[in-house]
Amino acid sequence: MIKILVDAMGGDNAPAATVEGCVQALKNDKELYLVLTGRQNDIEAELVKYKYDKSRIEIVDCPDVIDMNDIPTEAIKRKQSSLIAGFWKLKKEDDLCALVTAGSTGATIVGCQLILGRIRGIKRPALCPAIPNSRGSVTLLCDCGANAECKPVMLCQFALLASAYAEVGFGIKNPKVGLLSNGTEEHKGDPLHQETYKYLSKMQGIDFYGNIEGRDIMLSPCDVAVADGFSGNIALKSMEGCGKLVLGVMKKEFSATLSSKIGYLFMRKAIKNMRGQLDFEKFGGALLLGLKKVVVKSHGSSKASTIAASIANAASIYRKGLVPAVEKKLENVDFDTLIPEEE
Amino acid sequence: MIKILVDAMGGDNAPAATVEGCVQALKNDKELYLVLTGRQNDIEAELVKYKYDKSRIEIVDCPDVIDMNDIPTEAIKRKQSSLIAGFWKLKKEDDLCALVTAGSTGATIVGCQLILGRIRGIKRPALCPAIPNSRGSVTLLCDCGANAECKPVMLCQFALLASAYAEVGFGIKNPKVGLLSNGTEEHKGDPLHQETYKYLSKMQGIDFYGNIEGRDIMLSPCDVAVADGFSGNIALKSMEGCGKLVLGVMKKEFSATLSSKIGYLFMRKAIKNMRGQLDFEKFGGALLLGLKKVVVKSHGSSKASTIAASIANAASIYRKGLVPAVEKKLENVDFDTLIPEEE
Repeated sequence: MIKILVDAMGGDNAPAATVEGCVQALKNDKELYLVLTGRQNDIEAELVKYKYDKSRIEIVDCPDVIDMNDIPTEAIKRKQSSLIAGFWKLKKEDDLCALVTAGSTGATIVGCQLILGRIRGIKRPALCPAIPNSRGSVTLLCDCGANAECKPVMLCQFALLASAYAEVGFGIKNPKVGLLSNGTEEHKGDPLHQETYKYLSKMQGIDFYGNIEGRDIMLSPCDVAVADGFSGNIALKSMEGCGKLVLGVMKKEFSATLSSKIGYLFMRKAIKNMRGQLDFEKFGGALLLGLKKVVVKSHGSSKASTIAASIANAASIYRKGLVPAVEKKLENVDFDTLIPEEE
Repeated sequence: MIKILVDAMGGDNAPAATVEGCVQALKNDKELYLVLTGRQNDIEAELVKYKYDKSRIEIVDCPDVIDMNDIPTEAIKRKQSSLIAGFWKLKKEDDLCALVTAGSTGATIVGCQLILGRIRGIKRPALCPAIPNSRGSVTLLCDCGANAECKPVMLCQFALLASAYAEVGFGIKNPKVGLLSNGTEEHKGDPLHQETYKYLSKMQGIDFYGNIEGRDIMLSPCDVAVADGFSGNIALKSMEGCGKLVLGVMKKEFSATLSSKIGYLFMRKAIKNMRGQLDFEKFGGALLLGLKKVVVKSHGSSKASTIAASIANAASIYRKGLVPAVEKKLENVDFDTLIPEEE
């Protein structure tokens, strides 16, 4: 049995989408057991809409809710919220394997840092989504928003964390690591990135490729794109915005004339395939790396299918043993020796 | 007559594409007169392929060439290169209105800074492309790579420069200015962006909208996205990579089956329209703002049509009086009072 905690109140479409996603996830994976945190009445009102195995769902009543406008460090004090209560349970109960939330990113990160806790030796958790790339595989973008301010040691650790995720989660051997910068040449970037380049070049346990540009996230030979959380977030959102605009323009143009409407009938399958290949949310949400347990942050606008994918992803990553894999990788790198000037 | 200098040797497809682009530009605009810098023999060997008005093209022989691998501050010492000789001519000759190059971005920026010179009061030039957006208009992204390290005063000046460009170049009244960050909330970002937010809020002469995310560059109500050159470059390239991947997948899927091939025949016009709306290079290259004359940096991979568009854009921006418009805007803002701590 794999026991996963789901923040039933997190996200724009909660609890309807989260509850439906939980029911879907239970159907797809017979080993799952889900603990839903949130307003019991609201969750039960959704659950009655579905047929599901009642012995595999448990509700923990949390009357309070955190929304996107709350300041994360304040929000964390509300111990009766679905997210914060979830983090406390996750920390305390050994049999809980993972947490899935579509709630506030800021509050999630604060919960990871201040409640759940990091793997020994890791300075900061990092948010790491899997971006579809031109090889039909994924590029792991790490960090994409957990840390707006970074130091070289953090970027080096992101390289290690995402390499472990690429190996364990996607079966990529010797994942290639690129450093996201404003050009491919070694001298590019600000002092933070120039310094990080030097350390990544001599770091053990990763296969450093060099600097990469934003376009290389989706087009490159790299499996991991290391970024500070500020520019990593901008990269992710810029790609999302572009994808959304392209699909919007496509939809408009493809229904603009009789000819294009006829064409669309012949192309439906091709367009569906295309959308499938470009789906940012194929794996549900982004993983939070560097923590003692698996945490998946699903998009705020997650639909039921995205929540189900996030739960499935959390279960899969737990089964494959990401946390022990990171701990093993950490044994081979002494960050204090690699980066002596730091802290 | 509008006299424009073209770096005939700059870019991956030079001088073939640059020379062909020059010939196209001359045909489209009867007032143009072009000065091509580069290897005279190579340029002449291309020119003989076309019919054009010989009285409207002049060649300045420059035996040396700067390529992407040169270090910009070293490259600038090569005064016989097509780009550097171009900058010296542009600075010295009053009747030259603008320079167009598809050469090295780094060398172009160094040429702007060290040879051509900035408008009085402007700290740094900024690279500012026009990105297609969901309103069928453009978002001006400023800076997108000229300055990897920024200070608040620079970002505030980018807001002013790009606002002037939006007004003069695209006829947008009271352009809305967003600050590119890792979230929309006021507290988001690193100290540089948090501080800049405060100054932009009280700055005269611009209409500050607040923080925007990467997705808002293509999807938002803003006309200007202010960015430090590091994350602005990453945003631009990330969108380019995404656009390229989407078009690549589309091409593959649309020719994968007989059904989709038939569909394509009905959709050719729709797909052409779509590509037109999403073309990053509709206006040729990115403008360099804050300089005494108009400089357009065309993409390294520019084809002839892109070079022609860049030349047309340079002529248009000169005609519309961007430089005097910036100077006028500068009269209303006292940056030393606005940002007293700076320098």
